[in-house]
Amino acid sequence: MDALHTGPAASLDRFFLPRSVAIIGASDDPARIGGRPLRYLKESGFGGAIYPVNPNRAEVQGLKAYGSVQDLPEAPDVVLIAVPSAHVRDALRACGARGAKAAIVFSAGFAETGEDGVVLQEQLLDIAGGYGMRLLGPNCLGAFNAETGFYGTFSQILDASRPKPGPVAIVSQSGAYGSHLAHLAGERGLGIRYFLTTGNEVDVDVAEGLLWLAGRPEVEVILAYAEGIKRPEIFLRALALARANRKAVIFMKVGRSAVGAEAIASHTAALAGSDAVYDAVFRQFNVHRARTTAEQVDVAYACARGIYPKHNRLGIFTLSGGFGIQMADAAADAGLDVTPMPEAAQAELKALLPYASPKNPVDATAQALTDLNLMSRYLATMLDRGRYDAIVGIFGSGPASPTFREPLRAALEAAIAGFPDRLLVLTVSAPRDIVRSYEEKGFLIFEDGHSAITALAALIRIGAGFDIAAAEPPAAADAGADLRGRQLSENDAKMLLGKAGIAFPREALATDPASAVRFAREIGWPVALKIVSADIPHKTEIGGVLLDLASEDAVRAGAALILDRARLARPDAVIDGVLVAPMLKDGVETIIGVVRDPVFGPVVMFGLGGIFVEVLKDVTFRVAPFDKAEALRMIHEIRGYRMLEGVRGMPASDIDALADTLVAVSVFAAQHADDVTGLDLNPVLVRAEGQGAVALDALIMTAPAPRRGQE
Amino acid sequence: MDALHTGPAASLDRFFLPRSVAIIGASDDPARIGGRPLRYLKESGFGGAIYPVNPNRAEVQGLKAYGSVQDLPEAPDVVLIAVPSAHVRDALRACGARGAKAAIVFSAGFAETGEDGVVLQEQLLDIAGGYGMRLLGPNCLGAFNAETGFYGTFSQILDASRPKPGPVAIVSQSGAYGSHLAHLAGERGLGIRYFLTTGNEVDVDVAEGLLWLAGRPEVEVILAYAEGIKRPEIFLRALALARANRKAVIFMKVGRSAVGAEAIASHTAALAGSDAVYDAVFRQFNVHRARTTAEQVDVAYACARGIYPKHNRLGIFTLSGGFGIQMADAAADAGLDVTPMPEAAQAELKALLPYASPKNPVDATAQALTDLNLMSRYLATMLDRGRYDAIVGIFGSGPASPTFREPLRAALEAAIAGFPDRLLVLTVSAPRDIVRSYEEKGFLIFEDGHSAITALAALIRIGAGFDIAAAEPPAAADAGADLRGRQLSENDAKMLLGKAGIAFPREALATDPASAVRFAREIGWPVALKIVSADIPHKTEIGGVLLDLASEDAVRAGAALILDRARLARPDAVIDGVLVAPMLKDGVETIIGVVRDPVFGPVVMFGLGGIFVEVLKDVTFRVAPFDKAEALRMIHEIRGYRMLEGVRGMPASDIDALADTLVAVSVFAAQHADDVTGLDLNPVLVRAEGQGAVALDALIMTAPAPRRGQE
Repeated sequence: MDALHTGPAASLDRFFLPRSVAIIGASDDPARIGGRPLRYLKESGFGGAIYPVNPNRAEVQGLKAYGSVQDLPEAPDVVLIAVPSAHVRDALRACGARGAKAAIVFSAGFAETGEDGVVLQEQLLDIAGGYGMRLLGPNCLGAFNAETGFYGTFSQILDASRPKPGPVAIVSQSGAYGSHLAHLAGERGLGIRYFLTTGNEVDVDVAEGLLWLAGRPEVEVILAYAEGIKRPEIFLRALALARANRKAVIFMKVGRSAVGAEAIASHTAALAGSDAVYDAVFRQFNVHRARTTAEQVDVAYACARGIYPKHNRLGIFTLSGGFGIQMADAAADAGLDVTPMPEAAQAELKALLPYASPKNPVDATAQALTDLNLMSRYLATMLDRGRYDAIVGIFGSGPASPTFREPLRAALEAAIAGFPDRLLVLTVSAPRDIVRSYEEKGFLIFEDGHSAITALAALIRIGAGFDIAAAEPPAAADAGADLRGRQLSENDAKMLLGKAGIAFPREALATDPASAVRFAREIGWPVALKIVSADIPHKTEIGGVLLDLASEDAVRAGAALILDRARLARPDAVIDGVLVAPMLKDGVETIIGVVRDPVFGPVVMFGLGGIFVEVLKDVTFRVAPFDKAEALRMIHEIRGYRMLEGVRGMPASDIDALADTLVAVSVFAAQHADDVTGLDLNPVLVRAEGQGAVALDALIMTAPAPRRGQE
Repeated sequence: MDALHTGPAASLDRFFLPRSVAIIGASDDPARIGGRPLRYLKESGFGGAIYPVNPNRAEVQGLKAYGSVQDLPEAPDVVLIAVPSAHVRDALRACGARGAKAAIVFSAGFAETGEDGVVLQEQLLDIAGGYGMRLLGPNCLGAFNAETGFYGTFSQILDASRPKPGPVAIVSQSGAYGSHLAHLAGERGLGIRYFLTTGNEVDVDVAEGLLWLAGRPEVEVILAYAEGIKRPEIFLRALALARANRKAVIFMKVGRSAVGAEAIASHTAALAGSDAVYDAVFRQFNVHRARTTAEQVDVAYACARGIYPKHNRLGIFTLSGGFGIQMADAAADAGLDVTPMPEAAQAELKALLPYASPKNPVDATAQALTDLNLMSRYLATMLDRGRYDAIVGIFGSGPASPTFREPLRAALEAAIAGFPDRLLVLTVSAPRDIVRSYEEKGFLIFEDGHSAITALAALIRIGAGFDIAAAEPPAAADAGADLRGRQLSENDAKMLLGKAGIAFPREALATDPASAVRFAREIGWPVALKIVSADIPHKTEIGGVLLDLASEDAVRAGAALILDRARLARPDAVIDGVLVAPMLKDGVETIIGVVRDPVFGPVVMFGLGGIFVEVLKDVTFRVAPFDKAEALRMIHEIRGYRMLEGVRGMPASDIDALADTLVAVSVFAAQHADDVTGLDLNPVLVRAEGQGAVALDALIMTAPAPRRGQE
């Protein structure tokens, strides 16, 4: 199965682009699970062959039926299996024997019901694998392709009508959620091209679905839903491909709360990675993580228009001051730039209408409703002179008026005619057909102003993310030895990490008090002394650290003291000596760490030291490895970032060196994904600009040694 | 005018409960501003007298018209003025002469147009005041009372239909926003009893409208909108009354962003207080501040049901795992307690349906749709055994099915029958009439799950806020002398604040080095020395502070040194001496300050010291004075609160003493609202539990001395 699992998802063609489909358990009743897909396939004019399989009937829904899979005139590209769970194995075997390339198992009653179901489900995978078949489900709602009319699904939302094809695709672990999304997107007028629900994911999963969709030129927006990710390498490849191909991915990842995560555990076998890591992955790969379903659809709606504003300059056009202010508040919260009109342009607008407020929000008062020519000039002036990337116009129920809607639309069209790369977003409350008539002219329509701003901000962020060059895998030094089973002292860790490009203070390992004094003289006063032994990971516990020693006598006595303490506390320990280090205090304390996420593997954490980490949890994560641009984004992301810019008379910190350190840690972590389980650089002192970032302490935790017979 | 302005808003009866209404500028055309109110009054069956005034017609819209106001058969309770701005003064004079009690001025063309308009507007106030008339507007959309059918408004949203009366009231500075709210609330099925828009607010303002509504038993929910508040004392009285009368106030206060605030300045003459202070006031008075209009309507909808859950235990009922998880995530984010079902109850549910997930979210799978009896038993068990205050049930488009909607509703009714104090909130996508049929049975219906959670969390918070006893004005000590024009030294400030109940370290003022040494011996080592002079507010600038002096010699030399430095730096300064203070270091550094907000007067700020304030702006505000319970809420509100609970091996801090200090500062600030412009206690050291909170430094800024002839 591995080749299929890690392949380029090409084999998902069978689920999206089949030329023939068989239905095991085909029913004459178009309301039943085995009847509904047949009805949809017929009604939508699917061009391929449709083979109902039913041993009790000659015809099903007017189509010739086959008594068994063996009787089919050809090997079908895909089979839909709609029989009780106990019969699925037999059905799958028969399909495999007949040469079917893929199966969609609608039937429930597998892993979601308990341990017996897990076993049964694994058997399905074995059967399919034996025949080289790909498997979707079980316990899923199937897939569809609205363009070809292939409806391999029994989703009830298709009862009334089939979606119009368009640039949007949906991939969802949950069938119910996927259907809900398709319904809402359809209501919003979005064309849905592809739909895939993965259910229990015994073979095909959301990650692979994403990978397939990310490679399709006709897809521009992907709506995704998952409770957990099982194959992170495919998932990350899919997200990278989507970004490279400039496809917006808008993700609902549930299980954020501890409560939510528990609900997942009792619902599916999916492994929910730590939520902060998912947040990091989404940021890293330019995925918009939707907090609500309404937001998910709103952002998709904005992206489907296909215009990504170049910058975040927003103009607000209103006929009533209060609404304009509210919009300006929301825009500022969302990080948009509600910059004023140039003074001269303001004067021009004022000359047109003395009561107007021409700054931004531009309030043309109700006068603009009686003089639509004035409205056009106002809007055109905003686009031309204000150079806004997008304008939000607040119109309320005006466009609902039968006499007003046509002239208003014409006035808006006239305004934007010369600006094909700008967006005109309107807040409008009107019946759907009127909204559609505005959308056809290229306007984005939202009922709620706040939703409009949220979607617009997301659109701009996603567009900017496309332009960030895909991270080059940073240049990797020699990975060095496998560290499994090795206990590493602070000195060992510093040697390894020093080779990996991480800066440490000038330190020296003294084996006796006299050499400690000699090193201290070289390093400069005052110094710190630390015991070095791989057998003593927690040095302070045995009194193995002395700080701020400022004289030769103090160093001599101190070195002797901690060597004695170590021998007394751990008589069997192998003691390498005493580390002599300078006492560095200038700079901002930060923390860099590596944790091994159960889903995504080595993840680099960055934060400010002290209370920022301990009280405020002000940290951010990235999956390793990453490049310097990404490291800089991490650094800017933390709430305490201003500390690094210099506050209270402190100089600005060497952020450049800090970013280099983060990249080096990420490369090291990626190279040692299997043998290093954790890493702490605490603190990393970021000194003034040009003076670098040095780690004062280093700890590497390693995986256990492989048992005999393992590599 | 003052008596009217500060009266108990009783005179607003004239705008809400008039028995007669005249319309100046009454028009035969029901689409015009002077015609629309007439049409609404007629159609709604207003029981009082209606007097159209129009010199050119004998009849207007079928009613006898009067040639002038003088001709009216009685003095009208209220007149609606719909004439151009230039004629408003004359119309108002005529109304006053005829004995009208109140006027609503629809006309625009006043303060919003510039300085001339401001003058014109003030003239209106003078005219009305001279006749003892109350004035609404100008530039407003008027008022209505849906119960009596009094429609003193030309709002277009009433064109199609009039609202049904209900427990909701709307008071809005902006007519457009008020109308928009009324429209959305009506769409949502909410009954609107009263509606008031205040426009330019030359007399009646939002604050007074709130005060009137807060006193009406038939009002349960108040939706408000304002850009700024001009009369804070009435505003705060109104909010306190609304809380005491258990009325939910849901406020849209715009102008949050700097950009928004600028837009306000160019739109109205309203003074926008600092947004953080508005946030504080809303928290302090249990007002829900809505971030979006949709949220404002959602929360009103939930409150209008009249059930405020006692606690925040939320049960989630779902037929599909994914939706349940999403809801659990949102609930956890909103601070709701998604606590699991008791183990025994879980076992009972599991026995009913082995595939179910009975924890919470409770997932009864699609099986519950085919067995509605099972659904009833599940929900009743959740209410009974899970003791949830509210349950959110996720139903999607199920209730839209013609055959399903009745039995489903009956099953839900059966489930909740024995629990009249609990809420059953359903997420449903269905046509409006079906939604209404569910609402009539007491269910709250939301289309979006996230909105349901937000509204429910707000409902619970508002309900809990009702139960907080209105703050008793804290016991006030003698206010002491008027401080205007006085320069206060650190020692002066400490004496004054010490009398007000604020603790300072044991300190002594030495006049020479010898007495400094004597005091240091009494206080204990080490000590700090600080120059004391009202003429030297910034002591460190002249080197007037020495820290950590640990010997008699050091104190003697130090005291001499800073006295010399002070004399050298400020030869004319009156020097009181040298303050000898203990070096206190144990405890958490906090900051308490007072600023004078342009709207709300003295406001107390609280935050943690150091980077918490400087980098993170982690501070909170309250309007002075307040009681200890409020002070404790302040302390709990800051993000760094955990610092006070004890982190990194530190003991828990004396939060009780800190709260007492905050209360004492708030009382002092309120007593000195006119003469103290600012106050800083920085730092206030909060020591371990039982050991108190002491302010190490104190600075009081005073207002200038009154000029001769002023008090």
